[in-house]
Amino acid sequence: MTSRKSARKNAGASGPRRYDTRWIQRGARLRRSPFFDATLAAGCRSYTVYNHTLLPSYYDDPEAEYWHLLEHAALWDVAVERQVEISGPDAFDFAQLLTPRDLAKCAVGQGKYVVIVDEDGGIINDPVLMRLAEDRFWFSGADSDLLLWAKGVARHSAMDVRVSEPDVSPLQVQGPTSKGLMEDFFGTRVTSLPYYHFVETDLEGIPLVVTRTGWTGEVGYELYLLDGSRGLELWDHVMKAGRKYDLKPAGPSDIRRIEGGFLNYGADMTLDDNPYEVGLGWTVDLDKEADFIGREALRRVKAEGPKRKLVGIEISGKRIEFNETKWHVRAHGKPVGRVTSAIHSPRIEKNIGYANVPVEYSDLGTELEVLHPEGPRAAVVVRKPFIDPGKEIPKG
Amino acid sequence: MTSRKSARKNAGASGPRRYDTRWIQRGARLRRSPFFDATLAAGCRSYTVYNHTLLPSYYDDPEAEYWHLLEHAALWDVAVERQVEISGPDAFDFAQLLTPRDLAKCAVGQGKYVVIVDEDGGIINDPVLMRLAEDRFWFSGADSDLLLWAKGVARHSAMDVRVSEPDVSPLQVQGPTSKGLMEDFFGTRVTSLPYYHFVETDLEGIPLVVTRTGWTGEVGYELYLLDGSRGLELWDHVMKAGRKYDLKPAGPSDIRRIEGGFLNYGADMTLDDNPYEVGLGWTVDLDKEADFIGREALRRVKAEGPKRKLVGIEISGKRIEFNETKWHVRAHGKPVGRVTSAIHSPRIEKNIGYANVPVEYSDLGTELEVLHPEGPRAAVVVRKPFIDPGKEIPKG
Repeated sequence: MTSRKSARKNAGASGPRRYDTRWIQRGARLRRSPFFDATLAAGCRSYTVYNHTLLPSYYDDPEAEYWHLLEHAALWDVAVERQVEISGPDAFDFAQLLTPRDLAKCAVGQGKYVVIVDEDGGIINDPVLMRLAEDRFWFSGADSDLLLWAKGVARHSAMDVRVSEPDVSPLQVQGPTSKGLMEDFFGTRVTSLPYYHFVETDLEGIPLVVTRTGWTGEVGYELYLLDGSRGLELWDHVMKAGRKYDLKPAGPSDIRRIEGGFLNYGADMTLDDNPYEVGLGWTVDLDKEADFIGREALRRVKAEGPKRKLVGIEISGKRIEFNETKWHVRAHGKPVGRVTSAIHSPRIEKNIGYANVPVEYSDLGTELEVLHPEGPRAAVVVRKPFIDPGKEIPKG
Repeated sequence: MTSRKSARKNAGASGPRRYDTRWIQRGARLRRSPFFDATLAAGCRSYTVYNHTLLPSYYDDPEAEYWHLLEHAALWDVAVERQVEISGPDAFDFAQLLTPRDLAKCAVGQGKYVVIVDEDGGIINDPVLMRLAEDRFWFSGADSDLLLWAKGVARHSAMDVRVSEPDVSPLQVQGPTSKGLMEDFFGTRVTSLPYYHFVETDLEGIPLVVTRTGWTGEVGYELYLLDGSRGLELWDHVMKAGRKYDLKPAGPSDIRRIEGGFLNYGADMTLDDNPYEVGLGWTVDLDKEADFIGREALRRVKAEGPKRKLVGIEISGKRIEFNETKWHVRAHGKPVGRVTSAIHSPRIEKNIGYANVPVEYSDLGTELEVLHPEGPRAAVVVRKPFIDPGKEIPKG
């Protein structure tokens, strides 16, 4: 592993525009987060689009942001995580219908990472579910219109539920010093929360749900703003109070999430993949009492064994940039799959990522070839997550 | 009206980066069209994201592209229009369920512009529907996951249908000289098509559906590529054959579509709007024999009269740029609504657009105030479409 200092120096050298990028036209078709003006003022240099909404990608060099996250704290505008609210007398049964995970033991105030699948077991979304009341749930969704799926399923379900998108916009505060900031804000009420638990509270009168969740594997929290008109006020308050913790605005860190084994919907899993293929079989409770969409298909996949697998890979050669497209993967000269995510880890000092390959090429140590835009590279199947391989992602 | 020449000169002056833009990070999460590499090679300078896919916004100055469209022909990569295919024994009944428009008289080989609404009459999408066979339909969708809605509705519908996203990627060829190009390709078989009709055919062995449709109000066609692996081949062939017609790659022209009264889903209509509010009541056949989702809600809206209306507006003062956000609208000093689209028309030599306002402020001649980022501007409600006001958009 390399030190933070030397790595940061390297990071500075290539500058923040190292990713191949083009202009994005910011028409009124795309939604703005309640924090948007603050992210502009803070110098965000790149936005992408997620759930029809602009998502800040980075302000500084992404590698510098990564080191800052590891050593201090980062503030991410992730209002693009839109909530689908399920409420009404049959809300619990409907939430059970929507996900293969058993929610029977999900208490009020508790969240769970779940997948949503279609009739064929294909992944529609991988939200964090939160139980706000016995009969009220949020699904904090990835980049697909989960709202439309849930509304569509509700249509003929004969269940008495209301499906809506409430005015809720999350901010992530991630990194080791975030704990101190949360303690300043809320005392130990938040910092003592187990992973995937949450509380409803407020900050200077701004209504929030605060969760012990995040996309980094670092200590981290999310502030779910419950009143979009107060976004800039919340941002300013958090930034001001965060000064003593060296809190900085940043984009979600792909380096850190790939190191930690986190998946990105749309890249690492799509409607064409089922949970067993991408290592999310642990979110499928095939035999749960409640009915759920996709059970038959997933039972079949499990019985037969998945045909493909998302594996960790190391890619040889000089430092790569974040893969803009799904590079082809070959084995013995034959095309067998795609790289879904790839990046250079400055801590591991290796190019790491995931590849979707047939199960016969998924054993640790399997040699593969990655068709990098600049030419083929040797690659090998390795264990993931890459950092703390003994430590799994919290399965809350 | 001003001449093409003087207007083009003005257009050149401000350059292609006049829209306020930021970097877009092009990660593997976002899909590429089969034409993507060709659009890069052709010098596309700006992409936006539509249906999780990169959409070329412009190559040249957007105003120069507008004039070129009016006088010659433009090639648009609109592979972002993803198709939702409905097939199976109950496909017709299911298609009828999905849209308020009566499809009883929609023949095989015919298309129709339709809206898809939810239980409350809120607009989910405004696709072009095509009937490919008695029991096979495509919905060529705008920017929302219509696929998920249709799959969700199918789930408990007790109808025998298959809902899928086929490998289909449209190119638009629009503008007066496009007719000659189509005749070179397909003889009069395509150019004699009535608006909203189509044929299945091929070009040099590349399988296509060719439609007489478009988003411009100009003469225009769409080539629906049926094999994504042949995208670059199709692009090259069309560009080469298009040379004698001065065919140029371009982005969808917001100037032309606003002049023509076309709506953009996400900007001019959303799930919060119903068809009567945005001038699409003509696509609602309340009394059609077949059942459809949203009938009760829309019957109520029609009986009570819509509360809001999307109106044409002219905005005074110097030339505006494309509105990046939905500017606020005031009447008598009170906030009453939003500008959903706004742009400067070089032909009309005015700032034109749409505003969503309460019905009591929707009469022609009503004076409004638009909160432009640089300060308030007087505005007035005018008839739309702005060009050829006697001529409606083809209601195919």
